[in-house]
Amino acid sequence: MKKHNFYAGPAILPQTVMQQASEAAKEFGGSGLSILEISHRSKEFAAVMEEIISSTKELLGLPEGYEALFLTGGASSQFYMTAMNLLPSDGNACYVDTGAWSTKALKEARAFGGVSVLASSKDKNYSYVPKDYTVPSDATYLHLTSNNTIFGTQLKEFPKTKAPIVCDMSSDIFSRPLDIKKFGVIYAGAQKNLGPAGVTLVIVRKDLLNKVDRVIPTMLDYNTHIKKESTFNTPPAFPIYVSMLTMRWLKENGGVAAMEKKNQEKAGILYNEIDSNPLFEGAAAKEDRSLMNVTFLLKEDKLQDKFLEACAAAGCVGIKGHRSVGGFRASIYNAMPKSSVQVLVDVMNDFGKKHG
Amino acid sequence: MKKHNFYAGPAILPQTVMQQASEAAKEFGGSGLSILEISHRSKEFAAVMEEIISSTKELLGLPEGYEALFLTGGASSQFYMTAMNLLPSDGNACYVDTGAWSTKALKEARAFGGVSVLASSKDKNYSYVPKDYTVPSDATYLHLTSNNTIFGTQLKEFPKTKAPIVCDMSSDIFSRPLDIKKFGVIYAGAQKNLGPAGVTLVIVRKDLLNKVDRVIPTMLDYNTHIKKESTFNTPPAFPIYVSMLTMRWLKENGGVAAMEKKNQEKAGILYNEIDSNPLFEGAAAKEDRSLMNVTFLLKEDKLQDKFLEACAAAGCVGIKGHRSVGGFRASIYNAMPKSSVQVLVDVMNDFGKKHG
Repeated sequence: MKKHNFYAGPAILPQTVMQQASEAAKEFGGSGLSILEISHRSKEFAAVMEEIISSTKELLGLPEGYEALFLTGGASSQFYMTAMNLLPSDGNACYVDTGAWSTKALKEARAFGGVSVLASSKDKNYSYVPKDYTVPSDATYLHLTSNNTIFGTQLKEFPKTKAPIVCDMSSDIFSRPLDIKKFGVIYAGAQKNLGPAGVTLVIVRKDLLNKVDRVIPTMLDYNTHIKKESTFNTPPAFPIYVSMLTMRWLKENGGVAAMEKKNQEKAGILYNEIDSNPLFEGAAAKEDRSLMNVTFLLKEDKLQDKFLEACAAAGCVGIKGHRSVGGFRASIYNAMPKSSVQVLVDVMNDFGKKHG
Repeated sequence: MKKHNFYAGPAILPQTVMQQASEAAKEFGGSGLSILEISHRSKEFAAVMEEIISSTKELLGLPEGYEALFLTGGASSQFYMTAMNLLPSDGNACYVDTGAWSTKALKEARAFGGVSVLASSKDKNYSYVPKDYTVPSDATYLHLTSNNTIFGTQLKEFPKTKAPIVCDMSSDIFSRPLDIKKFGVIYAGAQKNLGPAGVTLVIVRKDLLNKVDRVIPTMLDYNTHIKKESTFNTPPAFPIYVSMLTMRWLKENGGVAAMEKKNQEKAGILYNEIDSNPLFEGAAAKEDRSLMNVTFLLKEDKLQDKFLEACAAAGCVGIKGHRSVGGFRASIYNAMPKSSVQVLVDVMNDFGKKHG
């Protein structure tokens, strides 16, 4: 039976990308070798690195002065690396706390300098995005999480501020166009919209570097990876290759503007069912609903297991909500086809008729 | 034409492993999903993590008190993480400098505490392993590089010392049995004997931790990954899966004792040709010759390109030596079949007859 993959991450990738990745694990780029065993200094892999960097610049429209790095360690490593590289010990890093990941990010930053929490939606279990705050004039940067995978909220707009925005976009990078000039650093673990787990994209505005006087280990210094174009040490070759394939797919499918349109349409179908089906309700504030992670609840808890069974029977996997929210979560990243969303909507609709 | 992969790393993996990896990129473990898109919290992937940890313990014979971690960032990240986790600011980390990687490791440690360089073979371009040194009684640890990929030397024995040994085994882990009790930390990037690039094995003796008073970012603290069994954040799922497959292959093929025997045999054939062919000479001191990376030179430089052409014509790739040594390097890790080594030996033999 065909599976519809609603996991929050690692998450669905385009079918053609997984097929190409499987082929490359046997034979890659006419080299006679597998992508798994070829040197990162070979001309075949050098071409992969070149393509992924130029595709990132093209897809996101990076202006002069920005670099795209492909590192490891996930967003969890960027929580401290951003502060380590950008925040002087007497600086003021400003955070908006919109969920578990923001909380972790600001905790790690405290080891390096001043941290201010400008706003938090913890009072309502992170079910909304705070908008009523002022960024102080001495802010070193403003840290935001653009999409909250666990809670199903998303920033629809980025605030106007003189401070550069440092943004965790792990779960919505490449899902919509961005005004890059607002950002100082953007980071994203690959394993939602980009590729398999094991590579982390970091966009850096170079003029923000070299303003701290601490000793930074070579591997943790953004300058190292800028200078060596992400091959200072052996990069995670296969996750990078698969991410490059996803970017090709993105370009063939109209880039981030086309993705945004498709994502609005998919999320629209699902939220419409949640709002019109009397058994269900959305978990997040309507105006802050994520187009990537749709969180919803059954009004009657006792039907929970039955609904999960109905999902499983239709091949929908990864629907169970995160323990912090409960209920259900359907992650519908770029690669999720509208037809799979429709399968889930049909399950909900049938379930409503049966138990309503 | 079949390619014989002599690259130094990323490097050859068993053919069956690459075939299984390719299959899993299409469908994994009966899940109906690709290994590239399945949650790291799924029961299917949890089984992979469990198997790779238990296989590591079994293959290396880890005693009580040791943990096996699967991290990212390569050995280059362990250069500073070992010091950050183990070396108090008033400690004394002792290094033996046997090449480029040792040099980088000790440079990174200096940011955290006292560092002593007990011996170095830099005087002869790292063509031998220094053995005549004393480990001071106040040593926090003794750092060694067990195999020097660039220079083709390898430690045949580990010194007797009261200090725990911290060892970079990136290029010879799983190639021979070890007396683990001598070691405090063993680290290894996967991309030689273990798997594809993107995962790093770290073995830690737990009682060496918690003796430093610095603030360690959560992701850089070994305790974090011990406590969460390497799934504190999303692990590099595919590189871990492929490494697990390689461990299965290792177990099916007799484990590390059988590997050592096979590696001695393969290296023997190649070094014998180097020593008996009048055109060639070995680059490393005979008693320190690596069983993993065989470095050799042509006595007449002008034949260099012709020899590389002859190698290429026979399907031997990755033979060109590192720029620090020149000449040639044949990396013959666990997965390299004896038959491929014989192909290279035949090329050398024919070349000797033609140009000798």
